[in-house]
Amino acid sequence: MTNQTAEYLAAIEHSLQQALLSPDEQVTPLYEMMAYHLGWRSETLQPVSAPQGKRLRPLLCLLACQAAGGDWRSALPAATALELVHNFTLIHDDIEDRSDTRRHRPTVWKLWGIPQAINTGDAMWSVAKLALLEPSDVPLSPERLLEIVRTFESACLALCQGQYLDIAFEERATVSLDEYERMIAGKTGALLAACTESGALAAGASKEVAEYYRAFGAQLGLAFQMVDDILGVWGDPQVTGKSAADDLINHKKAFPLLYTLHWEAERGLNDLTTLIERPYREEDLAPMLKLLERAGARAATQARVDARLAGTLEALDRAGAAEPAYSILQELVHTLAVRSA
Amino acid sequence: MTNQTAEYLAAIEHSLQQALLSPDEQVTPLYEMMAYHLGWRSETLQPVSAPQGKRLRPLLCLLACQAAGGDWRSALPAATALELVHNFTLIHDDIEDRSDTRRHRPTVWKLWGIPQAINTGDAMWSVAKLALLEPSDVPLSPERLLEIVRTFESACLALCQGQYLDIAFEERATVSLDEYERMIAGKTGALLAACTESGALAAGASKEVAEYYRAFGAQLGLAFQMVDDILGVWGDPQVTGKSAADDLINHKKAFPLLYTLHWEAERGLNDLTTLIERPYREEDLAPMLKLLERAGARAATQARVDARLAGTLEALDRAGAAEPAYSILQELVHTLAVRSA
Repeated sequence: MTNQTAEYLAAIEHSLQQALLSPDEQVTPLYEMMAYHLGWRSETLQPVSAPQGKRLRPLLCLLACQAAGGDWRSALPAATALELVHNFTLIHDDIEDRSDTRRHRPTVWKLWGIPQAINTGDAMWSVAKLALLEPSDVPLSPERLLEIVRTFESACLALCQGQYLDIAFEERATVSLDEYERMIAGKTGALLAACTESGALAAGASKEVAEYYRAFGAQLGLAFQMVDDILGVWGDPQVTGKSAADDLINHKKAFPLLYTLHWEAERGLNDLTTLIERPYREEDLAPMLKLLERAGARAATQARVDARLAGTLEALDRAGAAEPAYSILQELVHTLAVRSA
Repeated sequence: MTNQTAEYLAAIEHSLQQALLSPDEQVTPLYEMMAYHLGWRSETLQPVSAPQGKRLRPLLCLLACQAAGGDWRSALPAATALELVHNFTLIHDDIEDRSDTRRHRPTVWKLWGIPQAINTGDAMWSVAKLALLEPSDVPLSPERLLEIVRTFESACLALCQGQYLDIAFEERATVSLDEYERMIAGKTGALLAACTESGALAAGASKEVAEYYRAFGAQLGLAFQMVDDILGVWGDPQVTGKSAADDLINHKKAFPLLYTLHWEAERGLNDLTTLIERPYREEDLAPMLKLLERAGARAATQARVDARLAGTLEALDRAGAAEPAYSILQELVHTLAVRSA
């Protein structure tokens, strides 16, 4: 971590905490549930330092702002808001996916029930919007701020569209690779794109330059998700903290599985279909892995990751990103690409 | 209904429909679920004309704009957004309250499951925000639009705070009357206040005048909710469409019940407490109604309604509301106050 990154992360943490100050005692438990989700409070709502997220999104926002020649403080409200939106979606996703744990702790709905969890997510989203409108130390013009608000809201809608597809895909027998990309572009790409675009907008970038930053984030999001897909099948359980081949066990319609289904369909085969049409049994795992290997699913997924990463770096070059943020962003892309968890 | 009101309602309906046009085929079912909730589609997602809401909120917004001397079209984006936010909260409330029906039709979660319903609510909220930012035929300055966005987002957060309290109260033995008012101020007052305030802001009203319009909506919201509370106990089941004394049967901590509990506590009595501490039985209803009568709960609730209504009309006078909107708003207040369903 560079000094720059450390400074940014500290500012983000402070700004997040300011955004989540309870306005009065009566609603304090609502704010404490949000603080729990962010890793600041324990299950009994005592102050604690639990695993937090990577803060990737706000970091990207501030770095994009600096890379585009701006003062990073002008992007701090947007960065804060984007991290809060990301966390709002996690609270709702956990209910929708019936996930019991997140970052090795019980999820909000597990602790406080579905009704409070839905509402806690909604509240965090509201707090996010208000954080975006907070005057920063380096204020933006009303026109510029409205552009960022628009970018932000469009990303939120794209997220919901992606989530709709994700839930709908679960009940479908087949999903095309294009449909899958449309889904992850919404679920993962849209918010990262909004991070880098808002950073550039806060720096006063032109529409054209902001568009390159947007493309940078969007491609990074797709690469990021596909790396997740690789780890979901071939990741080291010691490192990922999940079961080996977790995605296969759950018959998750991620890229490697979908790719294999299409590879087989093109050849009139249906070996994998047969295996995933019935409930998972332990003895299915080895044959499934073999079928993915036969189709070359890992190499195909990696090829998509590589193409996205190339696109990411190309967009960053076209945007004319300035040092030192340029190098930090490149390094960040690299770290995300080779991560093992 | 005046010609004016009819014109407003038609414009609102058109604007709502524009806001909910699907951007592409893949996500069309998401938009159709939203359309179902709004009464435009059937359970099988065919076009239909089912019972819709009263459109009270957008109507208040446009009327406040006109009353404050503005062109109502400048408030149309805000009016549209506020109606969509109201409907988003209904979709989530129905999940949180486990309500099976809404406007005599199955709720969204009943038809499409909790995961899609949470996400459909989220999507409607996103659509609402974007509708607010849509350029209108009579555009606002960026500064003015940002003020309205801020008003809007603050109301959303207040809504979530109110909803947090409402859910939390269910598990508590007692709730003070002040706490109850704080809850309904969030759940019902905040959005109505935002409707009238944004209408005035769109008209270019000063901060002071906008504040009177805000107070008008806030008080109207409280009165509106307390009328609901009266109907929940003493409403005519033929008209309300609910069971007689539905709120009592469900031991709902609405004002009449809470008032009676406090009335008894002040006198060292606990007759109602004893009755509601055990599961409801049919033979409990008559004694419960008697206890409410002994405490004078109906008159006490009505007195609160009357005080709020007086406050509503006073705020409208102070705001210097112009005709004909002034009279229409007065009439609207009256209609809401004496409604029977």
